[in-house]
Amino acid sequence: MRNIVILGSTGSIGTQTLDIARALPHLFKVVGLSAGHNLELFKNQIQEFKPRMVHAVSESRLDGTWMTPEDMVSEPDVDLVMIATTGKIGLKSSLQALRCGKLVALSNKEVIVMAGELINAAAAEGKGTILPVDSEPSAIWQCMRGEDQPVKRLFITASGGPFRSLTYEQKAQVTPQQALQHPTWVMGKKITIDSATLMNKGFEVIESHWLFGMPYEKIEVLVHAQSIIHSMVEFIDGSVKAQMGPPDMRLPIQCAMSYPERVSSTVIPTYEPLKNPSLTFEELDFVSNPCFPLALEAGKKGGTYPAVLSAADEEAVHAFLRGRIGFGAISGLLTEVLGSHQSSGEVSIDSILNADEWARDKARQYIDRLG
Amino acid sequence: MRNIVILGSTGSIGTQTLDIARALPHLFKVVGLSAGHNLELFKNQIQEFKPRMVHAVSESRLDGTWMTPEDMVSEPDVDLVMIATTGKIGLKSSLQALRCGKLVALSNKEVIVMAGELINAAAAEGKGTILPVDSEPSAIWQCMRGEDQPVKRLFITASGGPFRSLTYEQKAQVTPQQALQHPTWVMGKKITIDSATLMNKGFEVIESHWLFGMPYEKIEVLVHAQSIIHSMVEFIDGSVKAQMGPPDMRLPIQCAMSYPERVSSTVIPTYEPLKNPSLTFEELDFVSNPCFPLALEAGKKGGTYPAVLSAADEEAVHAFLRGRIGFGAISGLLTEVLGSHQSSGEVSIDSILNADEWARDKARQYIDRLG
Repeated sequence: MRNIVILGSTGSIGTQTLDIARALPHLFKVVGLSAGHNLELFKNQIQEFKPRMVHAVSESRLDGTWMTPEDMVSEPDVDLVMIATTGKIGLKSSLQALRCGKLVALSNKEVIVMAGELINAAAAEGKGTILPVDSEPSAIWQCMRGEDQPVKRLFITASGGPFRSLTYEQKAQVTPQQALQHPTWVMGKKITIDSATLMNKGFEVIESHWLFGMPYEKIEVLVHAQSIIHSMVEFIDGSVKAQMGPPDMRLPIQCAMSYPERVSSTVIPTYEPLKNPSLTFEELDFVSNPCFPLALEAGKKGGTYPAVLSAADEEAVHAFLRGRIGFGAISGLLTEVLGSHQSSGEVSIDSILNADEWARDKARQYIDRLG
Repeated sequence: MRNIVILGSTGSIGTQTLDIARALPHLFKVVGLSAGHNLELFKNQIQEFKPRMVHAVSESRLDGTWMTPEDMVSEPDVDLVMIATTGKIGLKSSLQALRCGKLVALSNKEVIVMAGELINAAAAEGKGTILPVDSEPSAIWQCMRGEDQPVKRLFITASGGPFRSLTYEQKAQVTPQQALQHPTWVMGKKITIDSATLMNKGFEVIESHWLFGMPYEKIEVLVHAQSIIHSMVEFIDGSVKAQMGPPDMRLPIQCAMSYPERVSSTVIPTYEPLKNPSLTFEELDFVSNPCFPLALEAGKKGGTYPAVLSAADEEAVHAFLRGRIGFGAISGLLTEVLGSHQSSGEVSIDSILNADEWARDKARQYIDRLG
């Protein structure tokens, strides 16, 4: 029996984590939940799972003991923390949970993008364990299981998003509603837009760099429209392993939750190869997906650049979803903000949060100028 | 440094094993070689690798100490034995090497098909280790590495052979020359014909049953014409792992030779996903490939049926290659021989070798009646 805390329980990953906990009550006990503003759903979750600890951004009168997320993840009886928030919200709790030696299932990829070095340092310091939840890093992690040999290359697959066949010019006309229709994955709004711009794939490259200690030049991205092969690992002898399955987040979520075991579950769909009889690979087109090379460059530059990338992207996506800027302006905003940033080189929680604030200001100014 | 013996060094797998040994002289020392009738090549191999022990079926005057294969594999300084023979020749040496606690790289799949139970018993008795060399079982073995959880299903892939699109009637007209042109794999004659009849895939199902302790109903075969995905394993949580690479036997050979390490090699080709941008799966057609269900049935019946299957198939393939019977007659011969067999149930080396002899007699009578 594993005691779990879920931060961001009303979001897409949070509710799916609860699906797994509900299906496997003999394995998981929900001891803490935190949510943002979806209070109706949150109260239902509290009623169903009866967590000892609760936290909501907008409400303190809830059943259970109200606690900050950082305090919640520090409790001695907590075994595993699912960071299912988005954006920078999960950063401090992730660092805290790792420093307390917890298993930290990290779905909130911005956290590792903006502060990969600090996350790894916190895990080393507190003997915490980072468990990837994102589908592609989870695939890489599963392929590397039991392989203690050096890895030659990682192949991260990308569905290509809903606008795979559109040119850069055609993409400029895209509406939020169109961008929210992902062809293979059902996800939260922020990550769905990031998938449409391919920024999400850039984030995953940075994430994999930190999670697996891989140099950027050994990470390749391939467009794989069917989202069946979730990623591949090439070992030093040339052998390649792939992890496959229907596009459903509950498998990587459960893989992290039950780590290092695998457990049978009724909620995870079965892979039937003949249902998707053709699997394809295509080269990723950098020209029509300018956010991807921007992300890659920020990752390679390191320092506070990835934090700026992540913060500016969050502002840009929210502005796009509110109809304030066009789809094509997202990469323009990122180019502008990243281009005027100067990283101090020093990486600390303060320098990262300062860079984050700076980038959000810059991004808002840019949005105001456009609007 | 690992001391290796190669039985069947002049065949396809034997020469490729020597390619690996040649490329990695700091890891492998060839201490024993045995061959059949290709003396010219064998003498060149002896000159190059200078093995301490040698054996040839047709010649005793060779450099090095002449020894029987059984004696050779029993020598205390031998670490790994590559069984690269075909047909039943490798059986006794495989059992002996396993009883002596050696690492036994088993390419000679007929050995495990005819005597899987005895092979596993010999490994258990002598603490020997069976290392799969065949591409598909090697893929399964690689996917299972580091996974100590129960497996739900195995998916064995099949190129479908050179006559994938022909009907049963069209196949009846096929010549040995046509059948020896495999679309993706370069292999020995016997296995190339077995690939064309899909008997090879039946053998691999039986092989996987014994190697991985999998019930037959959990082993599925999928036609995958590109031979890039070498096989797949489904775990109890629904996650599927595949092992991939260009169709080249040197990777699975090296995987077995260097087990449990993976080592970099210059002779193994690199997998580039964009070179094969489309990977397909099709259902295996039992009607136009009657050898496959015959093999499956013999495997399920157990006892001496698989030995009869293997022996009768060897006779049938040789008769086809010599032009004595047509391609379509291979399955007819197998149906006849298997149909008239009565397994005693008891599985021992004697009952298996008796069944083998009985099946060869029956097969030859059938061939004589046809010719």
